[in-house]
Amino acid sequence: MNRNMKQTPLSELGEFGLIRRLTENIQIKNTSTLKGVGDDAAVLSYPDKKIVVTTDLLTEGIHFNLMYVPLKHLGYKAVVVNLSDVYAMNATPRQITVSIAISSKFSLEAVDELYSGIHLACEKYGVDLIGGDTTSSLTGLTISITAIGEANEEELVYRSGAKVGDLVCVSGDLGGAYMGLQLLERENEVFKVNPNQQPQFEGYDYILERQLKPEARSDFKELMKTLGIQPTSMIDISDGLSSEVLHLCQASKVGCNIYEEKIPLDKQTKEFAEELSINPLVAALNGGEDYELLFTVPIACFEVIKKEFDITIIGHITAESEGANLITTGGSVIPLQAQGWNPLKE
Amino acid sequence: MNRNMKQTPLSELGEFGLIRRLTENIQIKNTSTLKGVGDDAAVLSYPDKKIVVTTDLLTEGIHFNLMYVPLKHLGYKAVVVNLSDVYAMNATPRQITVSIAISSKFSLEAVDELYSGIHLACEKYGVDLIGGDTTSSLTGLTISITAIGEANEEELVYRSGAKVGDLVCVSGDLGGAYMGLQLLERENEVFKVNPNQQPQFEGYDYILERQLKPEARSDFKELMKTLGIQPTSMIDISDGLSSEVLHLCQASKVGCNIYEEKIPLDKQTKEFAEELSINPLVAALNGGEDYELLFTVPIACFEVIKKEFDITIIGHITAESEGANLITTGGSVIPLQAQGWNPLKE
Repeated sequence: MNRNMKQTPLSELGEFGLIRRLTENIQIKNTSTLKGVGDDAAVLSYPDKKIVVTTDLLTEGIHFNLMYVPLKHLGYKAVVVNLSDVYAMNATPRQITVSIAISSKFSLEAVDELYSGIHLACEKYGVDLIGGDTTSSLTGLTISITAIGEANEEELVYRSGAKVGDLVCVSGDLGGAYMGLQLLERENEVFKVNPNQQPQFEGYDYILERQLKPEARSDFKELMKTLGIQPTSMIDISDGLSSEVLHLCQASKVGCNIYEEKIPLDKQTKEFAEELSINPLVAALNGGEDYELLFTVPIACFEVIKKEFDITIIGHITAESEGANLITTGGSVIPLQAQGWNPLKE
Repeated sequence: MNRNMKQTPLSELGEFGLIRRLTENIQIKNTSTLKGVGDDAAVLSYPDKKIVVTTDLLTEGIHFNLMYVPLKHLGYKAVVVNLSDVYAMNATPRQITVSIAISSKFSLEAVDELYSGIHLACEKYGVDLIGGDTTSSLTGLTISITAIGEANEEELVYRSGAKVGDLVCVSGDLGGAYMGLQLLERENEVFKVNPNQQPQFEGYDYILERQLKPEARSDFKELMKTLGIQPTSMIDISDGLSSEVLHLCQASKVGCNIYEEKIPLDKQTKEFAEELSINPLVAALNGGEDYELLFTVPIACFEVIKKEFDITIIGHITAESEGANLITTGGSVIPLQAQGWNPLKE
């Protein structure tokens, strides 16, 4: 946000004024949204579909640092991470509710920035903002979003459907968001020492975007339909590949072998990892925030799926007794561990 | 919570361990809940109904003070205030999601207390806990709840349906929750001065319960059905009667006259208000948190509705040009003002 912009205290509007301001230009896009913002509750209609519901809570200092995350990007990302969970059910998102708690240090212009990102994501993904809550907090910013989507019953993909022999696949590439965060943190440290030095982001636009403006895989459901493939299980990769593989194996009561050399890494992810002397594999396995999809398909789909540029087969499902393992390039078998993000550790 | 109880740091369980602990005993009660906790999203099915969705965000220090609100009560109340919004649509709540952000000062036992209140409310109101998010905060406790309910289209009641001549009614009595809060705050001040003095709550059990363990009007929909009355508009009273009347008039594009002497006040509300030299009317108009229902019915329902013990006719709907007014016992006409709770004031 431009620091020279006018800063209007939120107390000038009050809660109801702010809600009016934030909701006045909402256009309903989905026929399933009968009534959006403006009553005690929104009203939806899904006569022929199953409904999926997911929710996330983001807190300042834990999930984001306003020192280097612009508010517009934060608003956009907060929506996208929820939609990603809807796509991970092979469903299509239709509505979101957005609740925020803000301290009085925020101006109206700051809240407008945040909501411009939220509205942009709604526009891009075709979802309706149907309600929420706006209140104050004594300290930082908190954002809570609930996303609602639809699917036909036969389209839904759960975590629990993986079968022995299935191929384990991921969309896109992994570890980029984590390396983007490392980049932001490095430049923030440099800035603290020398506020006049401009941040050095050249050549790292991709990993920066993976961190600051991730996209959810809205194309996946259509792609699978086109290929004639119904995944047997699926989960989105928000906490790092390791913990998502473990979730999927646990829910499906299976084991798996994941091959180190198959894990898709972008060139920038590898380059910046090398610059920081980090193993990029660690970023992929434990980094999180990639919002790609981890899924399984029957082995019969091998010929079709291996041709897909943006899908990588990284392993296969084994019996539960064999455990979930990483097979290193050297051939070692290492049990996968959920070293992902633990927000409750001290 | 008993301060002598064992205190287990949350870091011992981690996020996934805590989620398992909080969700392991959930029994699904509603046929509309196809899949609850445990995947990227919950799955619901509402083939023959309209769906209502509402959400609230509660933050420590703003909506509750852990100095005098037991965690179990807080969990219970956090659910109830959301269900109240569903009932205010004349719908029946079926599912909730619960997200919490907690600082590391909380123990597992404290979180268990909070969730025991949440589960108790789910049990009492017959709703399923279908998902959520559990994360950490750098500071206080934040609770975000989304409630989902169902209604037939013809049953739904919006804020916008009030017509000139309709009777304005409220369920129960008002101002009690506000006076209960005054009582808690007074005893907290006494405690600060003398920690050995026991709080003086005798004779004020009702207003204390209105504040600490409010109930939503789950009986209302059935009552109206039995009486053969379809309300023309409705809103729940969470921010005080004044601002709710104004919301309803604004949405319906009407005015109203509310009669001071008709506003229902409980004996304890009046007594404690007198003790503190507060006008109990102020508690009813601006106090908030009563979670009663404000609604309008056609004048033809007068004979039926006036016989209902727990319903009070407090005024009537007028033309928009006449404004929303309080008619005092002395006959003065005072425009109602939304002096209710403004969480964003400095």
